[in-house]
Amino acid sequence: MAAKACSVLITGANRGLGLEMVKQMVGSPRPVHQLFACCRDPDGPRADGLRDLAKKHPNVITVIRLDATDHCSIKESAKQVGSLVGKAGLNLLVNNAGGLSHGNMQTTSTQDMQAAFNTNIMGPMNVTKEFLPYLHAAATANGKPGMSCSKAAVVSSSSTVASMATVKELYPFFPAISYRISRAGLNMLTLCATEEFRKDEILFAVLHPAWVRTDMGGEEGAIDAPESVEGLLRMMDSLTEKQSGAFLDYEGKVLPW
Amino acid sequence: MAAKACSVLITGANRGLGLEMVKQMVGSPRPVHQLFACCRDPDGPRADGLRDLAKKHPNVITVIRLDATDHCSIKESAKQVGSLVGKAGLNLLVNNAGGLSHGNMQTTSTQDMQAAFNTNIMGPMNVTKEFLPYLHAAATANGKPGMSCSKAAVVSSSSTVASMATVKELYPFFPAISYRISRAGLNMLTLCATEEFRKDEILFAVLHPAWVRTDMGGEEGAIDAPESVEGLLRMMDSLTEKQSGAFLDYEGKVLPW
Repeated sequence: MAAKACSVLITGANRGLGLEMVKQMVGSPRPVHQLFACCRDPDGPRADGLRDLAKKHPNVITVIRLDATDHCSIKESAKQVGSLVGKAGLNLLVNNAGGLSHGNMQTTSTQDMQAAFNTNIMGPMNVTKEFLPYLHAAATANGKPGMSCSKAAVVSSSSTVASMATVKELYPFFPAISYRISRAGLNMLTLCATEEFRKDEILFAVLHPAWVRTDMGGEEGAIDAPESVEGLLRMMDSLTEKQSGAFLDYEGKVLPW
Repeated sequence: MAAKACSVLITGANRGLGLEMVKQMVGSPRPVHQLFACCRDPDGPRADGLRDLAKKHPNVITVIRLDATDHCSIKESAKQVGSLVGKAGLNLLVNNAGGLSHGNMQTTSTQDMQAAFNTNIMGPMNVTKEFLPYLHAAATANGKPGMSCSKAAVVSSSSTVASMATVKELYPFFPAISYRISRAGLNMLTLCATEEFRKDEILFAVLHPAWVRTDMGGEEGAIDAPESVEGLLRMMDSLTEKQSGAFLDYEGKVLPW
């Protein structure tokens, strides 16, 4: 990150944008000091790439088991991270894990809605709450006024389809109603947290990574993961207290709610 | 309603704004033809006022048991209403039932969030889905082009605190994070439904009743239920296809998302 080496935690770090973030963060000329790369099954076949990367950067990357839909798992991961960061705390939490389900109102079941609620709202909310003591510690340890991702911040992946302003144009060919509702909820959660923790100088923002060619975005995506992540990291580097509570795309464009 | 007598269903009709809507709808010079006043426990002590009203207007009001958080109950109520409306269908569904819980991010539990999700998002969504065939029937029976609440419409109670634009100003003294997130989700649901059922000429809108002195709003509210409901009914009367997907307050002011 911009100002100085710091500690970062990324959820859903085994695939897609999460894995690409880990790659670029450790590959940067000023790599982060501690990178907690979290995923549900660090020993499973879907974490091959992350394990390989962790082996190459054993002093920076710690792979952590974290299922953001399971409160016990969140608590366990927080204990582990807490013991590793100590008084310096955690500078940046990236709520990257998320789920996309297609379907319109008529084809979306209560179960689909519940899954989106668990993954895209309660996951980021409970992870943020559990790691708050370490974010507070980082803000205190930094000591300088103002906000930044190298001091104390929570950045969550949202999407332009969570914008009420885009529904009329995009819904007919991309309904994904459970995704839209849950991401709009995440946007509201972020705005609320922005106000709640403003006095503690913890920065909050939601970022739209673009429609990216990943497992989640599909082959039709507009850009590849490296381009999106380059933009997202540049964006995070540039955030100050002026952008706390902002909804921005990977190129820094302010998105409407 | 404006154009002609029609059939209306109101959830949470035993108290507060719901009960006041029933009162004003049957008391109007052009009362609705059929009014399905729904609540969770029609035989319980909290439905006294509604039962009294129903006794006075037995040809208009049918009290229906409907717990919007229970799928079986929704299905049962829909069967009952379906058999009563026949081919004329249901003209207007008012998703009035809702729940308010105070608390900020730190004091709001997963259970609080789940309750808000069930009551304020899944309730209106599942009720709307279950009554859609009767709304379709009403749109078809009407036959005229355009949209209105006397043809086929779903109007849901939202709140200005669901507006992302109000968080900065209002959060410090009215956090209610679970309410904000769930009402923002309801707003998104309404926008999605607007697009999904535009071709079927079913109108959707979310209305903000003001901060009203009811059990839910508390004694500090800004206005009384009769004033709010007068405004809301006037508003519903005036809605056309131009306002489908709108977020309006009880005086007709367009609210920001």
